[in-house]
Amino acid sequence: MNEMAQIDAFWRAANYLSVGQIYLLGNPLLKEPLSPEDVKPRLLGHWGTTPGLNFCFAHLNRIIRLRDQDMIYIAGPGHGGPAAVAHAWLEGTYSEVYPSVSQDAAGMSRLFRQFSFPGGIPSHVAPETPGSIHEGGELGYALAHAYGAAFDNPDLVVACIVGDGEAETGPLAASWHSNKFLDPAQDGIVLPILHLNGYKIANPTVLARIPESELIKLMEGYGYRPHIVSGDDPAVMHQLMADTLDEVFDEIAAIKAGSGGRLPMIVLRTPKGWTGPHEVDGVLVEGTWRAHQVPLTDVRDRPDRLAALEEWMRSYRPEELFDAAGRPVPEVTSGVPRGPRRMSANPHANGGELLRPLVLPDFRDYGVETKAPATATTEPTRVFGTFLRDVIVANPDDFRLMGPDETASNRLQAVFEVTDRAWDAELLPTDEHLAPEGRVMEVLSEHLCQGWLEGYLLTGRHGLFNCYEAFIHIVDAMFNQHAKWLSASSRIPWRRPIASLNYLLSSHVWRQDHNGFSHQDPGFLDVVMNKKAEVVRVYLPPDANTLLSVGDHCLRSRDYVNVVVAGKQPTLDLFTMQEAVAHCTRGLGIIDWASNDDGVEPDVVLACAGDVPTLETLAAAALLREHLPELRVRVVNVVDLMRLQPPSEHPHGMTDAEYDTLFTVDRPVIFNFHGYPWLIHRLTYRRNGHANLHVRGYKEEGTTTTPFDMAMLNDIDRFHLVIDVIDRVPRLGTRTAHLRQRMMDERLRCRAYTREYGEDAPMIRNWVWPY
Amino acid sequence: MNEMAQIDAFWRAANYLSVGQIYLLGNPLLKEPLSPEDVKPRLLGHWGTTPGLNFCFAHLNRIIRLRDQDMIYIAGPGHGGPAAVAHAWLEGTYSEVYPSVSQDAAGMSRLFRQFSFPGGIPSHVAPETPGSIHEGGELGYALAHAYGAAFDNPDLVVACIVGDGEAETGPLAASWHSNKFLDPAQDGIVLPILHLNGYKIANPTVLARIPESELIKLMEGYGYRPHIVSGDDPAVMHQLMADTLDEVFDEIAAIKAGSGGRLPMIVLRTPKGWTGPHEVDGVLVEGTWRAHQVPLTDVRDRPDRLAALEEWMRSYRPEELFDAAGRPVPEVTSGVPRGPRRMSANPHANGGELLRPLVLPDFRDYGVETKAPATATTEPTRVFGTFLRDVIVANPDDFRLMGPDETASNRLQAVFEVTDRAWDAELLPTDEHLAPEGRVMEVLSEHLCQGWLEGYLLTGRHGLFNCYEAFIHIVDAMFNQHAKWLSASSRIPWRRPIASLNYLLSSHVWRQDHNGFSHQDPGFLDVVMNKKAEVVRVYLPPDANTLLSVGDHCLRSRDYVNVVVAGKQPTLDLFTMQEAVAHCTRGLGIIDWASNDDGVEPDVVLACAGDVPTLETLAAAALLREHLPELRVRVVNVVDLMRLQPPSEHPHGMTDAEYDTLFTVDRPVIFNFHGYPWLIHRLTYRRNGHANLHVRGYKEEGTTTTPFDMAMLNDIDRFHLVIDVIDRVPRLGTRTAHLRQRMMDERLRCRAYTREYGEDAPMIRNWVWPY
Ligand SMILES: Cc1ncc(C[n+]2csc(CCOP(=O)(O)OP(=O)(O)O)c2C)c(N)n1
Ligand SMILES: Cc1ncc(C[n+]2csc(CCOP(=O)(O)OP(=O)(O)O)c2C)c(N)n1
Ligand SMILES: [Mg+2]
Ligand SMILES: [Mg+2]
Repeated sequence: MNEMAQIDAFWRAANYLSVGQIYLLGNPLLKEPLSPEDVKPRLLGHWGTTPGLNFCFAHLNRIIRLRDQDMIYIAGPGHGGPAAVAHAWLEGTYSEVYPSVSQDAAGMSRLFRQFSFPGGIPSHVAPETPGSIHEGGELGYALAHAYGAAFDNPDLVVACIVGDGEAETGPLAASWHSNKFLDPAQDGIVLPILHLNGYKIANPTVLARIPESELIKLMEGYGYRPHIVSGDDPAVMHQLMADTLDEVFDEIAAIKAGSGGRLPMIVLRTPKGWTGPHEVDGVLVEGTWRAHQVPLTDVRDRPDRLAALEEWMRSYRPEELFDAAGRPVPEVTSGVPRGPRRMSANPHANGGELLRPLVLPDFRDYGVETKAPATATTEPTRVFGTFLRDVIVANPDDFRLMGPDETASNRLQAVFEVTDRAWDAELLPTDEHLAPEGRVMEVLSEHLCQGWLEGYLLTGRHGLFNCYEAFIHIVDAMFNQHAKWLSASSRIPWRRPIASLNYLLSSHVWRQDHNGFSHQDPGFLDVVMNKKAEVVRVYLPPDANTLLSVGDHCLRSRDYVNVVVAGKQPTLDLFTMQEAVAHCTRGLGIIDWASNDDGVEPDVVLACAGDVPTLETLAAAALLREHLPELRVRVVNVVDLMRLQPPSEHPHGMTDAEYDTLFTVDRPVIFNFHGYPWLIHRLTYRRNGHANLHVRGYKEEGTTTTPFDMAMLNDIDRFHLVIDVIDRVPRLGTRTAHLRQRMMDERLRCRAYTREYGEDAPMIRNWVWPY
Repeated sequence: MNEMAQIDAFWRAANYLSVGQIYLLGNPLLKEPLSPEDVKPRLLGHWGTTPGLNFCFAHLNRIIRLRDQDMIYIAGPGHGGPAAVAHAWLEGTYSEVYPSVSQDAAGMSRLFRQFSFPGGIPSHVAPETPGSIHEGGELGYALAHAYGAAFDNPDLVVACIVGDGEAETGPLAASWHSNKFLDPAQDGIVLPILHLNGYKIANPTVLARIPESELIKLMEGYGYRPHIVSGDDPAVMHQLMADTLDEVFDEIAAIKAGSGGRLPMIVLRTPKGWTGPHEVDGVLVEGTWRAHQVPLTDVRDRPDRLAALEEWMRSYRPEELFDAAGRPVPEVTSGVPRGPRRMSANPHANGGELLRPLVLPDFRDYGVETKAPATATTEPTRVFGTFLRDVIVANPDDFRLMGPDETASNRLQAVFEVTDRAWDAELLPTDEHLAPEGRVMEVLSEHLCQGWLEGYLLTGRHGLFNCYEAFIHIVDAMFNQHAKWLSASSRIPWRRPIASLNYLLSSHVWRQDHNGFSHQDPGFLDVVMNKKAEVVRVYLPPDANTLLSVGDHCLRSRDYVNVVVAGKQPTLDLFTMQEAVAHCTRGLGIIDWASNDDGVEPDVVLACAGDVPTLETLAAAALLREHLPELRVRVVNVVDLMRLQPPSEHPHGMTDAEYDTLFTVDRPVIFNFHGYPWLIHRLTYRRNGHANLHVRGYKEEGTTTTPFDMAMLNDIDRFHLVIDVIDRVPRLGTRTAHLRQRMMDERLRCRAYTREYGEDAPMIRNWVWPY
C-alpha cells in the first residue's frame, strides 16, 4: 500500500471515529443501517476543526516514523476533542490506559458512547486525553505551551496546531515572538501549523481574510519561514502536506545542525468541517462557520438527517478501515509509530514520568543572621535571589525563572551572577546578561511567562514566575485553567505528579513607591481561593528567613499552585533561621518577644499576615506595651494562610482546638492582613469567636504616596491598630481616651510630615522593636 | 521663528518641565544654582519614555494647527506621566482645571512639587491628567483604547504611542488587527506610533532587535503602511518627523476621501532617555535601559550628581523658554492649538462632556406574557436580544455591542435583523451579516472587546460586552483598572460622568452543555466585589422579564461597572412584566406563589440568586409543599446582589430592619447561589441570623454532563435542598427520615438516568410549578 493511501486510511479512520463519538451510542461499525436509537439524544461536540486536526496527526506520524522523531502535539483548537481521542485509540494508547475501551467493536462502542456523555469524558482535549498537555477550553495558550514544552528538550519537536480564531487572541498573538527566546541548540523546535479553516464560531477569521501576501509578511515579520499548504482535494493535499513536511523537517534538521536561519511554520488552509456534510437542506455547511459544532442536527427525529449521517460516515468506507471485530486494519495502523514515539504515548506529554526532583542547596545557608529580632532590615527577595542563583547552578537544564522584565526590579538579580536572560535576537556591545542559553526568561507578557512555565512544568520540569502582585491578575484566567487541569489530573491514575506552579509576587500593594493606585491590587489571592483546596497554597512570609524556608518548600512540592507574596523593600528581620523553619513548618505562631501574655489569657490578640501588616502590628504591640503595660497582648503571625481554615476545608487546616488556643474563643482579635480583608473572614468563617475578629486590610484606597501614608489610608497602620484595640477591648474605653486621641494626632502628624517632606517621618522610617 | 525651532522650543520646554517634576521641590526656573534642598528626597518617576512622548506631542500639535485636525492622544507608556502633565500645562489646560497650578513660576513650583508626592498627583498618566483617557499603569491596552475611541468619530484621529515593551504584551499584539474592524468612512483614524526606544525596564525589546526588514513586514502583515523615523540628532529628527507626519496625514486624508489603501503608522526609533544624562559615572545611560526611571540618583547627597542635574536641566535653555515670571514665552506656546483643539482639552478625552443619553425603547414592550408563573419557558437572552436590536436602531452612532464571537451563541441574534458585524476585511458571497458599518463587534479576543468598549465609553458613548461567563476572567485585570479609573474619576470635579461598562455574562457555569469543566467559573463576581462599592453592581435576573428590566436600568446608568449574569437556555418565566419591574426595583423579594408562610413566621427561608439555582429552589419548595405541607416556607429571590450588604458597605445595601423582616433573625436560611458560595457569606457577614445561613453554590465540581447532573454535583439541586431543610429545621429530623431517604434515592435515580440515556430524566427536563 502506498504511503499516501496509508495516511489517507488513517485519516479516514480518525474522521470516522470522530463522527462516531459525536453521534453514536451503538452500532459503531454500521453493521446495520443506522436507527434513531443508535444516535445520542444530545448531540454535543465540535466537528469543524476535527478533520484538520486528524489530517495533521496522520501526517506527523509519517514524519515520526521516517525520522524517528521525538514529537508531541498541542491542539490549539482543543474543542476538536474527538480528534485527539480517535488518534490515541488508533495508536493503541487509549486502550492501554483505559483497558475497557479496547481496540475492537466493544471498545469502539464505549469510545463513542463516553464522549461528552454523563459519566464519560469531556468534549475537549483534556487531562483525560493521553498525549495532551493542553486543555481545549479557553483559547489562546497553545503556542506558549508549545514553547514551554520545547525549552531544554533539544531533541523534541512540538507540533502546535493554532486555530485561526485562536490566533486572534492576545496571548496567541504575543506567542509568535517566543522564537526570540528559544535557543535551537539547547532547546527543541516548535513547529506552528496555523490552521486556516476560515472561521471561528459564527464569523470568518482575520487571518483567513487578509491577502495571502500580507499573511506571509506577517509570519515573516514574526521571524518564521512560512510554507503554505492549501486546498480541499484530499489526494492533492496529502501529497502537498507530505512534501511540505519533508521540506520543513529538513529545514529543522539544518537549524538543529547549526545552519541558522528562520524556523519554519506551516499555513494549512482547508475547509472547516472538511469531508463532512457539504450542504444541509440546501445550505452550505462544509467550508463555512456552520460546520463549527454539529453539522447535522435533529438526526433522531428526521429520517433524511439520519440518512445523511449514515452516508457521511460510510463515505469514510469503514469496512476498509476496521476488520469484522472492529480492530483497525494494518493499512490504518502500519503508519503508527512504536511505543513512546506515539504522540499519544510520548512521556513528554505526561511530564511527571520524566520529572527529576530539583537538586536544592540547603536554604538555611542563605539566611540572614538575626541577633535581636526586628532591629535590622534585609530585602527579602534579594536574599532569596541568592538561593535561586544556586538552584539555577545546581539544575542547569530543568529549572527556569520567568518574569515580565521584573527580575531585577523584584531584586532577584543575584541570579545574573551565574546566568543570563534568554535572548536570541540581536545583541549590542552595551548589553548585559543576555544570551541564547540564559535560564531567566524575561518578556513583557505575563501571559507568555505563565504559558511558557505551564508548558515547561507539564513536560516534567521546574520553575518559578516572579511578578508584580497587581499584574498577576492578567493571568487569572490561565491560573484558573491550570488549577482545573491539576484538579482533574489528580483523579487520573496514569497522570504522574508534576512540579508545582510557583508564583513569587513582589512589588506588592503596600510598597508602590514608584507607582500608584493602578499597581495596588492584592486580589489574586481571592481568585486562587476559589479553586479546589487540594491544589492551592498561599504563603505570606514576613521576612527574609521565612521567605527562604517557604521558597524551598514550594520548589519541592508537586501538583500545587503555590502563591508566595513577599516584599523587596528593606524589611525587619524577625526570625533566626531556626525560628523561621519552625514558624513556617507550623505555618503560623505566636511571636513571643512581641507578646506579654505568657502564662495568662491575653486581653487581645494581634494577628497579622504579610510583611507590612506585620511591621505595623509589631509597632502597635510596642505602643501598647509602652502606653498600656498592663494590657496582655498576644501577637500571632500567619505565614501559611490555609492553616486558618478547618481541616475539612483544606488539608493544611488546623483543628478548632489548636485555633481556639491560639486565637482564643472570646477575646478580640485584630487581624492585620496583607490583602482584601474579606479573605480572612472567609477562611475563619466557621471558627469560634469569629464575631470577635476584626480584620484590617487593603480597602482599595491608594495613590502614589509614602509607604506609611498607604498604611494609614487603609487603616492598617500602628496607630489605627492601637485605636482598634482601645475600641474593642472591653473596659479600656474611657480611661484610654487620652491615648486614643494621641494616636489620632499621631496619624495627622505623620500625614502632615509626608505632605511637607515627601517621605515618612524618621520615627516611622527608622522604627525598630524597642524592647 | 521657523517652525522647527518653534517645535524644538516646545519640546525643550516639555522636557524641562518633565525633569523638574521628577526632581525639584523649589527653584523651578533655576534662578539660583541648584541646592540639595531644591531636590525631592524620594526621586520617583520614569524619565526614559518621556522625551519621546514630548517629541510626539510637539509634532502632533503642528499637525492639529495646520489642518485644524480633531485629535487626541493615547500614551501607551503612560508611566511617562510627566510628559502628559507638562504638555497640559504648556497648553494652559492644566491651569484651567487646577487654577492653583498657574502658568507662572508659582504654578511651576506646584507643578513640580505635586508630582509623585504625597497628597499630589500620581506618577503615571491618570484620570487626574487632562487630555487622557488611558491610565499609564498596566501596559497593553493603548491601541485597543485608541480604536475604541475612534469608532463612530469620523473626524477624529487618535494618535497612539505604543511602547516597544508594551508591544510584547498579548493585548497589544492582538490590537494591531483592529484595523479590520474599523470603517474609515464611519469611524475615525488611529495613528499608531510605535516608539522603539529600544528597552523596557531592564531588557531590550523584541521589536527593537529584529531586523528592520522584518519589522516592516510585520507592520505590513498587520495591514499598515509603516513610516520609519529614526535617529538621535534633534535637528534632523524634527525635520524628518514633520515631513513624515505631513505625508501620513496626506495619506489619512486620502483614505478619508475614500481612496482605500492601508492605514499609515509610524515607527519612531529614538534613544531611551533622549537628551538626558548620556553617561553617569562613566556608564552609558542615554539610549539604554538604565534611563528607564531616574537616571541620576543620590542627587541630594552627591554634589557631582547635583551639578549633573543642573547641567541637564540647563541644557534645555530654560531662560529662552520661560519669561521672568515663569510663563512660557510665545515661541513655546505659539504652536499650541486653540481651545478644544488642544489635545489636553479635547472633549473626546473627557467623554462625559459629549455623552448623550441613549434613546431607549420601552423595555416592557419586549416582555414575555406570563400567564401562570413557572409554567412556560423562554430563552432570556433571546428576548433581551430583541430589545438590544431596537436599541441599536434608535442609537445608530453611539451604541455598540461587543463579544468574542459569541453574540449568536449567547442567543442575541435578533440584533442581526437590523445590523451586521463590523468587518472590513475580505467578504465572500457566502458570508452573512458582515459589513464595515456593522454595530456588533466580534473578535476572538476578550481583551479587544474590553479595550475597545472602554475606549468607546471613555469618549462618551455606550455599549455592552456579552461574553461566556467563565472566560470573562481573561479581562479581570482590565476590569480592575477600569474600576480604578472610575473610582479615581469620581473624585475629580472636571471629569464628567460616562456611561457604565455593562457586562452580559451568559453560557454560564450551570449550562455548559457543549463544554465542560474548563468553561465553569462564576468567580468574576468575586473579583468585581473587591473594587469600590461605589462603582460596581451585580445583577442575577432569574428570567426574561427581569433581564429586560435590569438591562434597561444598566444602559441608563453612569460611572458603574454593571455585571449581569443571565441564561440563554430555556428558563421558566417567573414574573409578569409588572412584577418583574417591581422585583428588580426592590432588587429582591418574596416569591408569593412559591411561599406558604403568609401571615405567619416561616420555618425556613429558601433564598436564591441566579436562574438555575432559582429553578431548583422553586422545585424544592414544591417538594416541601407536597411532602411537608405543614412546613412554612418562604422563597426569596435576589436579583441585585448588592442589596444583601448593609447600607454602610454599599449604596444599594438594605437596612437591618428590612433584612431581618425578609430573612428572619432566627430561622434557617438555605441560600442557593449561582456562584461560589462564599460570596453570599461575605455580603451578609454583618447580618443578624448569619449563623443560620447555609449557602449552596458552585464548589468547583464539574465536567461535560447534563444540567441537572451539574446541579447535583454541586449540591444545589432540589433534592439536596430538601435534605438541607430537613437537616436544618429543628425538630424535623426523625419524622422526616423517610423523605430524606427518598430525596437521596431521587438523586441516584436521576444520575442513573443520565448515565443510561445521556440526558436528564423527563420529570426534571419538563418540570413546571405544579400548584
Ligand atoms: C478565550 C475563548 N474565548 C471564546 C471561546 C469560545 N469559542 C470556542 S471555539 C471558538 C472558535 C475557535 O475558532 P478556531 O480557533 O478557528 O478553531 P476552529 O475553527 O478550528 O474550530 C470560540 C470563539 C473560547 N473557547 N475561548
Ligand atoms: C502588564 C505590565 N507588566 C509589567 C509592567 C511593569 N513595567 C512598567 S514600565 C515597563 C517597561 C515598559 O517598556 P516600554 O513599553 O518600552 O516603555 P518605555 O520604554 O517607553 O518606558 C514595565 C515592564 C507593567 N507596567 N505592566
Ligand atoms: Mg478556525
Ligand atoms: Mg521602550
